[in-house]
Amino acid sequence: MLIKNLIIPAMLLAVYPSVHADEGQWQPHQLPQLKAELKRIGITIPAEQLADLSKHPMSAIVSLAGCSASFVSPDGLVVTNHHCAYGAIQRNSTAEKNYIANGFLAKTRAEELPGGPTSHVYVTDKVENVTARVLEGLDKLSGRARHEAVESRIKTLIAECETDKSYRCSVPAFHRGAEYYRIRQMMIRDVRLVYAPAESIGNYGGDIDNYEWPRHTGDYSFLRAYVGKDGKPADPSPDNVPYKSKDFLVVSAEGLKNGDPILLAGYPGRTSRYKLPSEIRYARDLSYPQQVAEFQADLDTIDAATKGNEGNVVRYASVVKSINNRMKKTQGLLDGFARKDIAAIKDVQDADFRAWYAKQPGVSKSMLAELDAVIAADMALSDEEFAWNVATNSDLFKSARTLYRLALQRKKPDAERESGYQQRDVSFIKARLARLEQSYVGSVDQARYAAGLQRYAKLKAHPQGLDALLPVAADVPALYSASKLGDTATRLALMDKDVEAFTQSDDPCIKLAVKLNAVGQSLEDRRKEVDGNLEKVIPQYMGAVIAWKKSQGKPVYPDANSTLRVTYGTVAPYSPRDGVTKGPFTTVEGIVEKHTGKEPFNAPSALLQAVKGKRYGVFKDPVLGTVPVNFLSSADTTGGNSGSAIVNKRGELIGLNFDSTYESITKDWYFDPQITRAIHLDIRYMLWVMKEVDHADNLLQEMKIKYPKK
Amino acid sequence: MLIKNLIIPAMLLAVYPSVHADEGQWQPHQLPQLKAELKRIGITIPAEQLADLSKHPMSAIVSLAGCSASFVSPDGLVVTNHHCAYGAIQRNSTAEKNYIANGFLAKTRAEELPGGPTSHVYVTDKVENVTARVLEGLDKLSGRARHEAVESRIKTLIAECETDKSYRCSVPAFHRGAEYYRIRQMMIRDVRLVYAPAESIGNYGGDIDNYEWPRHTGDYSFLRAYVGKDGKPADPSPDNVPYKSKDFLVVSAEGLKNGDPILLAGYPGRTSRYKLPSEIRYARDLSYPQQVAEFQADLDTIDAATKGNEGNVVRYASVVKSINNRMKKTQGLLDGFARKDIAAIKDVQDADFRAWYAKQPGVSKSMLAELDAVIAADMALSDEEFAWNVATNSDLFKSARTLYRLALQRKKPDAERESGYQQRDVSFIKARLARLEQSYVGSVDQARYAAGLQRYAKLKAHPQGLDALLPVAADVPALYSASKLGDTATRLALMDKDVEAFTQSDDPCIKLAVKLNAVGQSLEDRRKEVDGNLEKVIPQYMGAVIAWKKSQGKPVYPDANSTLRVTYGTVAPYSPRDGVTKGPFTTVEGIVEKHTGKEPFNAPSALLQAVKGKRYGVFKDPVLGTVPVNFLSSADTTGGNSGSAIVNKRGELIGLNFDSTYESITKDWYFDPQITRAIHLDIRYMLWVMKEVDHADNLLQEMKIKYPKK
Repeated sequence: MLIKNLIIPAMLLAVYPSVHADEGQWQPHQLPQLKAELKRIGITIPAEQLADLSKHPMSAIVSLAGCSASFVSPDGLVVTNHHCAYGAIQRNSTAEKNYIANGFLAKTRAEELPGGPTSHVYVTDKVENVTARVLEGLDKLSGRARHEAVESRIKTLIAECETDKSYRCSVPAFHRGAEYYRIRQMMIRDVRLVYAPAESIGNYGGDIDNYEWPRHTGDYSFLRAYVGKDGKPADPSPDNVPYKSKDFLVVSAEGLKNGDPILLAGYPGRTSRYKLPSEIRYARDLSYPQQVAEFQADLDTIDAATKGNEGNVVRYASVVKSINNRMKKTQGLLDGFARKDIAAIKDVQDADFRAWYAKQPGVSKSMLAELDAVIAADMALSDEEFAWNVATNSDLFKSARTLYRLALQRKKPDAERESGYQQRDVSFIKARLARLEQSYVGSVDQARYAAGLQRYAKLKAHPQGLDALLPVAADVPALYSASKLGDTATRLALMDKDVEAFTQSDDPCIKLAVKLNAVGQSLEDRRKEVDGNLEKVIPQYMGAVIAWKKSQGKPVYPDANSTLRVTYGTVAPYSPRDGVTKGPFTTVEGIVEKHTGKEPFNAPSALLQAVKGKRYGVFKDPVLGTVPVNFLSSADTTGGNSGSAIVNKRGELIGLNFDSTYESITKDWYFDPQITRAIHLDIRYMLWVMKEVDHADNLLQEMKIKYPKK
Repeated sequence: MLIKNLIIPAMLLAVYPSVHADEGQWQPHQLPQLKAELKRIGITIPAEQLADLSKHPMSAIVSLAGCSASFVSPDGLVVTNHHCAYGAIQRNSTAEKNYIANGFLAKTRAEELPGGPTSHVYVTDKVENVTARVLEGLDKLSGRARHEAVESRIKTLIAECETDKSYRCSVPAFHRGAEYYRIRQMMIRDVRLVYAPAESIGNYGGDIDNYEWPRHTGDYSFLRAYVGKDGKPADPSPDNVPYKSKDFLVVSAEGLKNGDPILLAGYPGRTSRYKLPSEIRYARDLSYPQQVAEFQADLDTIDAATKGNEGNVVRYASVVKSINNRMKKTQGLLDGFARKDIAAIKDVQDADFRAWYAKQPGVSKSMLAELDAVIAADMALSDEEFAWNVATNSDLFKSARTLYRLALQRKKPDAERESGYQQRDVSFIKARLARLEQSYVGSVDQARYAAGLQRYAKLKAHPQGLDALLPVAADVPALYSASKLGDTATRLALMDKDVEAFTQSDDPCIKLAVKLNAVGQSLEDRRKEVDGNLEKVIPQYMGAVIAWKKSQGKPVYPDANSTLRVTYGTVAPYSPRDGVTKGPFTTVEGIVEKHTGKEPFNAPSALLQAVKGKRYGVFKDPVLGTVPVNFLSSADTTGGNSGSAIVNKRGELIGLNFDSTYESITKDWYFDPQITRAIHLDIRYMLWVMKEVDHADNLLQEMKIKYPKK
């Protein structure tokens, strides 16, 4: 063990000796390296099969961009989290047909509702290592020149791949740029809402229970992927037909128990496991506290600006939810850092690594010093970027800036445009500009902007030249009353306008965007310079770290980067503090226990009656004697893993990932096997609600469900 | 099961199938009835032996009046809780020698310190059923006449018993008056402080952790009983010698584990298990909420009156602690009633009982209606008694009233005096009047009294005639400034004065006591009337309840009444809510986890170092891998059980009882085996602190300790 002088909760070690240290978000192709470990915990699917994206079960795993999901029928039926389908539920809800409050069930395919312009299903079908093509011959370059060379090569790789318009391709960096993989995903863009339970099931516990255990959330919903009659992705149309998913997961109602092995497949977003102690300290001491303060201030502003107007409160509900979630996560990181000195743990690891590195023959003597210098530059620039974001905390301004940048970029040939502003990105920009209307109120945005400007004034690191160009808070009302950008049609019409339409515009918000563009561009140019330097030295560093780990016989997984990963673990409780054990299961009785009749603890009476009547049916767990709701496992997850399929040793769907415990939040930086637990929906609860509460018999029929033997 | 429609936490049942329903605070002579049950859980001491107070281990169990304790050496060494020895520690502490903060250890007998005038050890040596002598021929009487007849017979029984001045005798009612036992206790009145750990061990967690789990409190202290050279109890004197305890408990460091059986022997104070649903509702809806409000208001007054004067804060510390404790307990009862509708459970039981009763041949048809009427009268009178207490919330007034009553009673022959004012009570009155100075400040008492009068004015049920006699709040300062009763010598001198000295006194507080005496006396007379009626009908009711329980094959234990009882159970965790398990053990690592460096979480550095150095020695538990601190069991306890010995199946001391979990508080009314857990000190922690932290080697030598085999 690298860790010295740490007090290990001896009780937990003693009571749960079978908990495995299940760190690792593995690229599927790495799984054969972990064969022995997978076998040891009891997984019976061959590792080679798991590594093959064209084979079951991996070919049933999909991305929703930001969330994970999986096919559960041959007709494109997709199961994911309620909170991942929330946008689709919200956009179809009205005061009369409130699907958020009451849930929604399409009893026939004709009743399925459009998921909206940003609702896509991505099926990863090809992953190629393109490191050589990205990095070849770049050794001499550094800074912005290097970064732009990498970007240009990536664009070429993507363009090659996207000649077939059914696909969306990407070339993300792994190990902070040591490797690059080209990932091809079929992008299905007609996605419909099939079934969502009432929010009082799907989001039971709401923000109060977010990141908490015990948990009793039925966080699931069903979507369906539709394609053109030719079987290929198509724009949303009534003529489209359900996608014939060649693979789908069998659902197992046979359940699982404490200590059982599980596999989890999905698209984790971002982790920082290989960052340096200095980076942790920057996050802990500066960046995160600043972020938490900013989140709280913004929430306070929204609260004050929406108070008393129920319509505005509802319109900002998802914005507030999202800020709250990020704030709770960031605060959780700070609390976790206060509880356990992860920087000190990393110090020890870093010192061990540096000692090992110094002894290796032929390595660069200057690499580690260069690394430290580049990271210091990165942190300094991050402060300015943070200030820029505070100074531009306006959806109206951001729309204007996006539109102006689009006009500027469109002047260039497509291949030379900034990533995010190429032709392939236009439909996404349009969807975002259109969707803004769901969560925008002029008076509220105006208040957020004015408050942001006042907070900006108090920050230390101001981007050069910005102060003189910014409006003062007192000018903000006039800016909003004169701007036409709050109107969706106006925003969308500007997508086709040329640069002059912006430079000559009278709209004060567009004028501001034009005026601030040079400062914004300068920040981005400096970011490219820093990133180019990072991309030069970090791969050397990570290469050395990987070699060091390999010298200890440890395979190395890359930090999460929103690409398909597999993690494994066991169903396991944990001890948040001496004398207390949490999990691994909650039960439907716990829903009744928490029920207050008020949101977010207002379970539907049909559910309460079913529990009181002990109508458990086949979903009764033999050990618990009732229906389980949520459970904990030691699997390694992060944001983006929401909706991830959890399968048993045979690859059958037995749960959906949807959250982590509060004590686990620091896993983004350091995976502590004693304390890290992911929170999952037990699929038996989902099936039980579908049967006993929502009577979703059509879907229960459509899925292939293995029921326990009588 | 009598209980219908209750949601049983199925998980707990499933996970801990070996938890027994260990309800019952048994009189030792009842234990042979429970032979099979004791054997089933694994107790190897014969039940007949446990029933014999002259035999080991029961003859080692003692009372401290309000607390329980046990002999642990042949030289009168007594172990009890830190909070039970707190008065003795406090009275010996000065700013220079702060034994509360630093702990105290007498390395030799000569260094042992006087426990103070109220510090007694009581050894129960004889228990006789005297029901016939108390109740014979009283059938025709009711009300006050009956109550006074019972009181008179009890006085005779006590007087007979106390002819040997070594003994203190009592004749408490069991089953609310269905049975009476005469209990003879040797009263040892020279008790000395031997050893107390620092408060940061003995009261680790303080009020914050009171009634809470996880718990890490080293709640133990050692006293020693001294007697005259003739071996008989004697007034405190340097000539006294350690009492040669004919029996004492062997201490076992062999430990215990989850599921192990335990026996607990001590002096539980008061329970209400057999009260009627109407009595629960009165407590829940009226009496307890009123009490909590009163406690809180009094605490607020004390806080405001002591603020800024550290000396006064310290002087009221134990008063505040005591009110806080009672308030937390009362609030815990209310929270428990809100969580579980115990009145409804009792309704079902009551209805079942009444249905059974109606079918019994030859029973009184009117008994249950009479019972309901008497209980209604009891509740009405209780409201007035509560108001009286609020109106007399003054230690100064209470002293005056005690002294005046003593003078009044002394005019009568001793046998006719009120209980509590007989010759046998005079030394106790004196001790209380003297000890008041430890926790009295005139300005604070004055504020409490004035505030009490203002609260009294807002109450509904005022005792007749009282309002006209009470001072108004504005008169209180003059009353305090003119009264001499704040002076201890003045109070003690008044103990010998006759009635005229009071009626002619100029002291305004004594004048008030004389003036209010008629109202107080009237309340007491009415209490006797109600009690006499209760004592007439309740025994009939309880007799029927006992017969009903016996008809179901269930032995019946009486409600706690501060007499010696034995309870048994197993070491067991519990689930406070779905998805969370607490206990059964905490460990020394948890002390470090809670340590903040500030009271009440300021563990001594010697202790922290011993934990960090893993210097567990022989006290390391083989399952936990470290030293356990506290543990939970399913034993049935209540206030008064503090300090109770917990012995293993062989009768060896393995723990000390000191608290219950918050969720257990309602056990005073209803024992819920799922949720009720008592909190115990693991004797291994005590021994470990004695060895590793406090180096109390002399005591470790003196005790007979069984260490685990290597």
